[in-house]
Amino acid sequence: MDRTDAKRHPFYEETIETKPIFEGRMISLQVDTVRLPNGETATREIVRHPGAVAVFALLEGKLLVVEQFRKPLERVEVEIPAGKLEPGEDPEQAALRELEEETGYRAKSIRHLQSFATAPGFTEEVIHLYYTDELTPGKVHLDAEEFLTCEAITLEQAEAYIREGRIYDAKTLLAVQMWRLKSLTGAF
Amino acid sequence: MDRTDAKRHPFYEETIETKPIFEGRMISLQVDTVRLPNGETATREIVRHPGAVAVFALLEGKLLVVEQFRKPLERVEVEIPAGKLEPGEDPEQAALRELEEETGYRAKSIRHLQSFATAPGFTEEVIHLYYTDELTPGKVHLDAEEFLTCEAITLEQAEAYIREGRIYDAKTLLAVQMWRLKSLTGAF
Repeated sequence: MDRTDAKRHPFYEETIETKPIFEGRMISLQVDTVRLPNGETATREIVRHPGAVAVFALLEGKLLVVEQFRKPLERVEVEIPAGKLEPGEDPEQAALRELEEETGYRAKSIRHLQSFATAPGFTEEVIHLYYTDELTPGKVHLDAEEFLTCEAITLEQAEAYIREGRIYDAKTLLAVQMWRLKSLTGAF
Repeated sequence: MDRTDAKRHPFYEETIETKPIFEGRMISLQVDTVRLPNGETATREIVRHPGAVAVFALLEGKLLVVEQFRKPLERVEVEIPAGKLEPGEDPEQAALRELEEETGYRAKSIRHLQSFATAPGFTEEVIHLYYTDELTPGKVHLDAEEFLTCEAITLEQAEAYIREGRIYDAKTLLAVQMWRLKSLTGAF
């Protein structure tokens, strides 16, 4: 149900006040006071985020993944290539950009698979997930504060990484599930 | 790779300073200054979260889902039952509690399927996903600020909800994917 329809829903919470708390480089934080369906008021802690893209990319039948340290988790994770949207950026262009920057591969074509909310209880972040299996060599270009390595793994390796906890995040788990389904049925 | 091993990884970022920004009811926010692998410093915006549970519950072959308004997205979503961990609470106990509170069904047994990070770029939140198909009637008990309705849907309905954007969040998409895989192979 989109935002317009949501306003007519019996559970809709009207904003009474928005209190900005923090404005960061990646996220910002606000506390909204809302009118509940029963007429009472409540507060909602909301992390604003510009949205992100992720790419499920197969190189000769293997999944391109990047290994990086994730400070919020204090863990090294293996994930599919991903990154946040620049202001005003088209998600498909962002997906092509992030893929090449992080893996050094350029996609000749790319296809939108699914968009999803990562943690709707406290953030508006949506990830747009794309698929490609048409790759040509391009050029790695990491941000100044970005450290990662790229590898291409088989479905069996991906499943082992999940068991070992090296693949641990929602977007990569979703991509691996889609890959399993594709390997069983030929389609997503 | 767990937290201890991560400290020995070449991409590990050591914390130099932690600046608390906000302490809320559901989340808190801090900005960490870190030492990068190249010796430079950078800041990391981190949303602290106690973790959450979600339950993939089948009632006579149908998936139990709840419909609720999600203020951060300004959307009404259909999701599997879920909720955050209380301080010190065991995830399995939390899963049993949230399932009964939101759906009115009690699980006679429950099984851990997968834990995953929702948005590792900016939050430590981990969701522990459980499965049950052994349900008995219990009692709905919603929090004072919680408004939702519960229904049981077929796999075909779940797939239609995904196409319509009513199912839109990572944990519910993961559960539906697992359900598809289970219906094809008989196992997760």
